[in-house]
Amino acid sequence: MTSNTFGVLFRVTNWGESHGKSIGVVIDGCPPLLELSTKDIQKELDRRKPGQSKITTSRKEPDKVKILSGVYEGKTTGAPISLLIKNKDHKKQEYSKLKNVFRPSNADFTWQSKFGIRDPNGGGRASARLTAGNVAAGAIAKKLLKTKTGIEILAYVKQISNIKADIDSKKINKCDVETNIVRCPDKKASEKMQELITKTKNNKDSLGGIIECVVKNVPAGLGEPIFDKLDADLAKAIMSINATKGFEVGSGFSCAKMTGSQHNDLFEKKQGKIATKTNNSGGIQGGISNSMPIIFRVAFKPTSTIGKPQKTIDTEGNETVIVPKGRHDPCVLPRAVPIVEAMTALVLCDHMLRHKAQCGDIK
Amino acid sequence: MTSNTFGVLFRVTNWGESHGKSIGVVIDGCPPLLELSTKDIQKELDRRKPGQSKITTSRKEPDKVKILSGVYEGKTTGAPISLLIKNKDHKKQEYSKLKNVFRPSNADFTWQSKFGIRDPNGGGRASARLTAGNVAAGAIAKKLLKTKTGIEILAYVKQISNIKADIDSKKINKCDVETNIVRCPDKKASEKMQELITKTKNNKDSLGGIIECVVKNVPAGLGEPIFDKLDADLAKAIMSINATKGFEVGSGFSCAKMTGSQHNDLFEKKQGKIATKTNNSGGIQGGISNSMPIIFRVAFKPTSTIGKPQKTIDTEGNETVIVPKGRHDPCVLPRAVPIVEAMTALVLCDHMLRHKAQCGDIK
Amino acid sequence: MTSNTFGVLFRVTNWGESHGKSIGVVIDGCPPLLELSTKDIQKELDRRKPGQSKITTSRKEPDKVKILSGVYEGKTTGAPISLLIKNKDHKKQEYSKLKNVFRPSNADFTWQSKFGIRDPNGGGRASARLTAGNVAAGAIAKKLLKTKTGIEILAYVKQISNIKADIDSKKINKCDVETNIVRCPDKKASEKMQELITKTKNNKDSLGGIIECVVKNVPAGLGEPIFDKLDADLAKAIMSINATKGFEVGSGFSCAKMTGSQHNDLFEKKQGKIATKTNNSGGIQGGISNSMPIIFRVAFKPTSTIGKPQKTIDTEGNETVIVPKGRHDPCVLPRAVPIVEAMTALVLCDHMLRHKAQCGDIK
Amino acid sequence: MTSNTFGVLFRVTNWGESHGKSIGVVIDGCPPLLELSTKDIQKELDRRKPGQSKITTSRKEPDKVKILSGVYEGKTTGAPISLLIKNKDHKKQEYSKLKNVFRPSNADFTWQSKFGIRDPNGGGRASARLTAGNVAAGAIAKKLLKTKTGIEILAYVKQISNIKADIDSKKINKCDVETNIVRCPDKKASEKMQELITKTKNNKDSLGGIIECVVKNVPAGLGEPIFDKLDADLAKAIMSINATKGFEVGSGFSCAKMTGSQHNDLFEKKQGKIATKTNNSGGIQGGISNSMPIIFRVAFKPTSTIGKPQKTIDTEGNETVIVPKGRHDPCVLPRAVPIVEAMTALVLCDHMLRHKAQCGDIK
Repeated sequence: MTSNTFGVLFRVTNWGESHGKSIGVVIDGCPPLLELSTKDIQKELDRRKPGQSKITTSRKEPDKVKILSGVYEGKTTGAPISLLIKNKDHKKQEYSKLKNVFRPSNADFTWQSKFGIRDPNGGGRASARLTAGNVAAGAIAKKLLKTKTGIEILAYVKQISNIKADIDSKKINKCDVETNIVRCPDKKASEKMQELITKTKNNKDSLGGIIECVVKNVPAGLGEPIFDKLDADLAKAIMSINATKGFEVGSGFSCAKMTGSQHNDLFEKKQGKIATKTNNSGGIQGGISNSMPIIFRVAFKPTSTIGKPQKTIDTEGNETVIVPKGRHDPCVLPRAVPIVEAMTALVLCDHMLRHKAQCGDIK
Repeated sequence: MTSNTFGVLFRVTNWGESHGKSIGVVIDGCPPLLELSTKDIQKELDRRKPGQSKITTSRKEPDKVKILSGVYEGKTTGAPISLLIKNKDHKKQEYSKLKNVFRPSNADFTWQSKFGIRDPNGGGRASARLTAGNVAAGAIAKKLLKTKTGIEILAYVKQISNIKADIDSKKINKCDVETNIVRCPDKKASEKMQELITKTKNNKDSLGGIIECVVKNVPAGLGEPIFDKLDADLAKAIMSINATKGFEVGSGFSCAKMTGSQHNDLFEKKQGKIATKTNNSGGIQGGISNSMPIIFRVAFKPTSTIGKPQKTIDTEGNETVIVPKGRHDPCVLPRAVPIVEAMTALVLCDHMLRHKAQCGDIK
Repeated sequence: MTSNTFGVLFRVTNWGESHGKSIGVVIDGCPPLLELSTKDIQKELDRRKPGQSKITTSRKEPDKVKILSGVYEGKTTGAPISLLIKNKDHKKQEYSKLKNVFRPSNADFTWQSKFGIRDPNGGGRASARLTAGNVAAGAIAKKLLKTKTGIEILAYVKQISNIKADIDSKKINKCDVETNIVRCPDKKASEKMQELITKTKNNKDSLGGIIECVVKNVPAGLGEPIFDKLDADLAKAIMSINATKGFEVGSGFSCAKMTGSQHNDLFEKKQGKIATKTNNSGGIQGGISNSMPIIFRVAFKPTSTIGKPQKTIDTEGNETVIVPKGRHDPCVLPRAVPIVEAMTALVLCDHMLRHKAQCGDIK
Repeated sequence: MTSNTFGVLFRVTNWGESHGKSIGVVIDGCPPLLELSTKDIQKELDRRKPGQSKITTSRKEPDKVKILSGVYEGKTTGAPISLLIKNKDHKKQEYSKLKNVFRPSNADFTWQSKFGIRDPNGGGRASARLTAGNVAAGAIAKKLLKTKTGIEILAYVKQISNIKADIDSKKINKCDVETNIVRCPDKKASEKMQELITKTKNNKDSLGGIIECVVKNVPAGLGEPIFDKLDADLAKAIMSINATKGFEVGSGFSCAKMTGSQHNDLFEKKQGKIATKTNNSGGIQGGISNSMPIIFRVAFKPTSTIGKPQKTIDTEGNETVIVPKGRHDPCVLPRAVPIVEAMTALVLCDHMLRHKAQCGDIK
C-alpha cells in the first residue's frame, strides 16, 4: 500500500519510472511565503545528475526541473508544490533484453514477486533515478531549514573500498566537498579514490564505500519519541536510499567495544550554552537533538549492475548469463552525497514543523 | 506531535511513564479470530523483565499483563486490544535528587529542552521501561506472523565489548539462545561475556555490544518502496529502541570494501525455488524481501547510567557531580534481545497487512 | 484496518467494549504545560453519563475517570495521556439471549458480517458507551482551545420529533442549556419535549431529533483545504457519532431553494474587523473559518432499541421476534449534546495545531 | 499542514491552481494489474468539463488527461499513477481586478487570512476546477470497484430551487441521468429546471439544489468504526466538495420526526439473503454497509459568483462594489454529479482495501 509519500507534516509524494516521459514529486505542507525559484532546486539536481564527471555514468540527463504549482509571484503559497522533470528519450531496446532476466542483487526479482508486473526499462520504478525527485524536494527543505533555523547539512565521501579519508568534520565546508569530483574533502584520498574508480570501471566492476553527514547549528529539541526519534527517522530516510546497507550515528558500531565511562558525553558549559565535551551521541540523546552537531555514516554497497558476465535466472526459472550493456556508475557515492543531504533535510524539516505543532517554534 | 504510535496497518500506541501507576499499549488493526491469551504475551514479557538473572538489574518488576479489550471468548475481534501492565510502587525519593540534574548521555537534557517539563522519576517517558509495552504488542505480532506465514524471528547477542561470538545463523534455534542468561548461543563466548559483565558491574561501569537478528521463512514480496522499504522500516524500528547507535543489514558496513562482483548475490534454483548463492543482500533487495533469510545487526551503546561519579550540569546550569544510586543493567543486551525481536515482528506484521491490502495474501 | 484513532496532530485512540472491565482513550499530541486534573474531565463525563435524569436510561454508571499517564505535577508533559474509565459489573445474561439475534437497525448484523465475530454484551464495541472516552478526550481539547484561543463550543437540543425550539444562537449561554434536563434552552419547548419523551418511553418507543452547535470566538484561518476542510472534518467527526443521519452547516439544506444573491454573505466592517452581514456560510468559507460563529446541525435517529416486540432474523437466518429488556434511552439527544461538543472540540483543537505547524499560531 | 491527500490505502494527492499551467493528481496504492487507459479516465472528465451545455459556464476547457506513470503495457503496476491535465491559457487580466477584493461567500478572504498570500487567478487553489483531478482519480476507483466487487455508483440531480424531481432510486440507470443536460432523470422536472436555470442566468443570479447518490451491489462489511465509519467518511468526502452545505444518509433529517418503531429497518430473508424491509439506514448500520443500497443526499448552495453588483470589502478593508465578469455556472449541480460519484468511489475503494487488509477480500 501507499508507500510513495515521505514525511508527516512536510510531505513528499514521489512518482515516475526511470524511462517514463517524466518523473516528479508533490510537496505538501510547505509553509507559505518562502521565496522559491527553480534555481534553488536546479543547483541541487545538478549535483546529482548523471554524466557530471568522468567517474560517473556517461549517460546524459539534463534533469531540468519545472515548478507546476504552489508558487505565486516567487513565493510559496502553502498549496502543494508540484515539480516535474522530463526524462530524455531512452533507448528502450537496451532493456528489452533484460525484460525476462533477473539481474543479480537488483530489484527485478523482488518487484516481480510482489506486484506480478514490472516496468523493466531502466529498472522502472526501482531505479535510483527516482531519487532526483527527492533531491528536488530536499532543496526546498534545505532552504526552509536555513531560513528558519540556520541548520546546515554537509555530506561527503568518507571511504571508498579500502581508501579512508582523513576528515575533521568540524572544519570542512561545502567548498571543500564540491571542488573535487569524488566529493571527498581529503584531497589525497580523493585522488586515490578517483584512480581506483577509473581502474575498477575499466575492469567492468564496481565499488562500495561510506558517506558521512554532519549537520550544524541544530537547535536542541528536534525529535519525537518514543517512536519517531530523530535518529530513527534519519535511519529510515537514509536506508530508503538505493544501495544502502548500514546506518550509524555518533560512535555507531564502535560503541560496542566501549564502556559507559568512556562513551558518556559529559555536559559542560561553553560560552554560556550547555554542550558536551565529547559527541559520541552524535548530537542526539533519547531521540532528540541536543544542539551538538548531528553526525552519521552510511554504507553503500558496490553498484550491482556491472559489465562482467554473471550467471543468473530468467523469469521462466532457467539458468542464463547476463552481460548488461547500460551505462552505469562504477561507484554511486559521489552522486549519492546530495541524495543523503536531501533525505536528511526532509527529515529535519519535517521534525521542525512537528516540533512547532506541539511545542512551538524551535529556537 | 503525535509520535507514540508505530505502524501503518498494525498500529501500536504506547503510553506511560517509568514510575507511573501503570504502562500500556493499544494495538489497532489486528485481524479478527486470532486465538489470544495473556499467556501468549506474558512469555515474551518475562524474557524482558528486570531481575531475571544475576547479570541484569536487581530491580524486580513482575510485569504482569492484562488484556482489557479486543478479545472475546479467547479470540481477537478486530477491535483495538488494550494491554495494561501495572508498575510496582517505586521509591520516588531515589530520583528526587536527580530532578535537577542532567545525567550524561541520558535523555534528561533533551526532553527538558523540547517540552519544558519532564517527569524525572526513573527517566519518566524516556525510560527503556516503556519497551515492555512494545514487547507485549510484538508478542501478538509474532503469533499472527507464525499463524499466517510461518515467519520466525530469532535475535541473539553477537558481541559484547571485545568478545565476539561465533554463530552460524542458519543452524541456531531459540533454545540455544534462551538456555543462557546472556542470550548468546555460542556457549564459550557466553561464559566470557558473563564474566566480563559481572566484573564491569562490580567496577560500576557498563558495556556495549551487538545483537544480530535472523528472520526465517520470509516469503518474497514484503516491503513498500520507494520509501517504506522493508530494510528502511526495520532500521527505523530498531533505531527507536533505547541505546541503539547503528543498524546494518546483510553485508552491512563491510560492503564498503567489496566490489560488485564480490558482493552480488547470484540467483540459482534450489529445490525448484529461486534462491541466491550468497546473502549479502540480507534477504532484502530493492527494499522488498527476496525469500532468503533476513539478517541484520544492531549496535547498543554501554548503559549511560553508571555507578561511577561523573561531572555534569544541573538544570540551573551549574557544574555538579552525579553519583546515581538506582539499580541499572550493566549491559542492556541480554534483555534487549526480546525487544529487537518484538520491533522486528511489528514491522513484518505491518508489512504483511500492507502487502495484503494492495497485492493480496502473501504466500 | 486501524480506525480507532481520530485526529492528525491531536490524536485520540479509543478502546474498549460496552461491558468489558473498562474503557479508555489515549490522547497523543497534546502540548505540554497545560494544567490538567481529573476534575476538568469528570465534569464533561457527568453530562454524558447514564441515569442522570428521569428521561434518560435508568442504568447507573459512575463513569469515574483516571489519568494514568502524561500529567506530572498537575501539568501535561507532552507525553501521551491515558485515560481509563471502569465499567460497572454488568448483567451479561441480559444480553446472552441477544447473542444469536440481529437487532433491527443496530450494528449486530454488520459487525458480524465484517469481522466474523462480535462481543454481543451491551453491543460490544458498537455501543454508544464508547463515546464516553471521546467526551473525556474532548474535555482536554476544550480546555486547550479555551486557553489558547478563547474558542467556546455550545450545543443544545433544537428539535425533538415535531417540537421545534425557538432559539437565538447569538444570545444563549451554557447555563441556559444545562439548567434543564433536555438540554434545550427554549423553556417552553423543553417542557413539551420532556412530556413527549416520557410518554414515548411509557409507550416503549423512542424519538429522534436535531442538535444544533454554535462555536464562538473562532479566529479566521482554521481548516485545511482542499480535503481537510473544516466543515468536511466536522461532518466526519459528527457523523461518526452513533445514531446520526445528517449534518448541515450554516444555511444547510435550506440553501437548495435560495439564489446566490439571497445566499451570499456580504462582507462589512464591524468595529474595525471584517465580518459578514449574514451567516449562511455558517462561519466557514472555502473550508476555512472566517471568524463568524460556526453553526451546524445534526440529525439523530430515534433509538433503535425499543421495548416493543419486533420481527427480525437470528444468526442462523431464521425469522424470530425480539423484545429487548435492556434499559435504554427513549431519546438520545439530551446525552448526545456533550458528545457533539466533544467531537467538535477535537476537530478544532486538531486544526489549531495543524494551522500552527504550517502557518504559525492562530490569532 | 498537508491536506491535499485523500484516502488511507487508495490515496489521491491533488495539486495545482485554477489558472496555472496544469493541474493533476497522484494516486498511490492502486493494486497492480488493473487494465487502465486514458479513455477510462477521459469519459468521466468529459462529464465534468466546463462548456458542455448551454446551462453550464461558457468557458471551454478540453481537460485532456495524460497518464505519466504507474501504467505499463496497459496495466497498472502498483506504482503511483500520475495524471496531468493541461490548463488552457487564461485571461489573467480578468482576475487582476479581483486581486484586491474579497468576493462574497468565496474563499478569497479566508485563504488570505490563513496563508497571508493567495493566487487570485480564477480562485487559485480554492477553485472548483481542482475537482477535475479528483474526478480523474475517481474514474480509476470506479473501475477498480466494478472489477473487484460489482459496486455501481449513480448520482443525479434531485432538486433545483423549488423544483423537486420524482425519482425511484431503485429503477433509474445511468442512461436516464446522462441523456439530459441537467442530469436529472425525471424528464418533466428536468425541463423545468433547465428553464429556471436559463432564466436565472439571464437574471445574473444563481441557484442551489440537491444531488442524490445511490450505490448498488455493495457487499456487507465496508466501514471502519468507531471513527472511520462508512457514512462518516462519505460525509467528509462529500463535504470537501466546493459549495456543499449539507449531507444526509438514508432517512436523513427526516428521521428527527420519526419514532423508533417507524424508523427501524426490520430484517427479513429475500432470496436466501438477509435484507431489510425498509432502508431508512441508507445501507449503513453502525458505520458498516449492510448490503442494501447506500443512499445519500447533498445540498449545494447557489454559486457565489454572480453577475449582479454586490457590496464587499477590499484587501485594505475599504468598502467597494464588485461586478465579476468571469463566466460562471449559474447552477453547479449538473457538473457536480460526476464529482459526487468520484468522491464516493474514492471512499468505497479505500474502504474495500482497508477491509481487505484486516479482514480479507470483501465478497
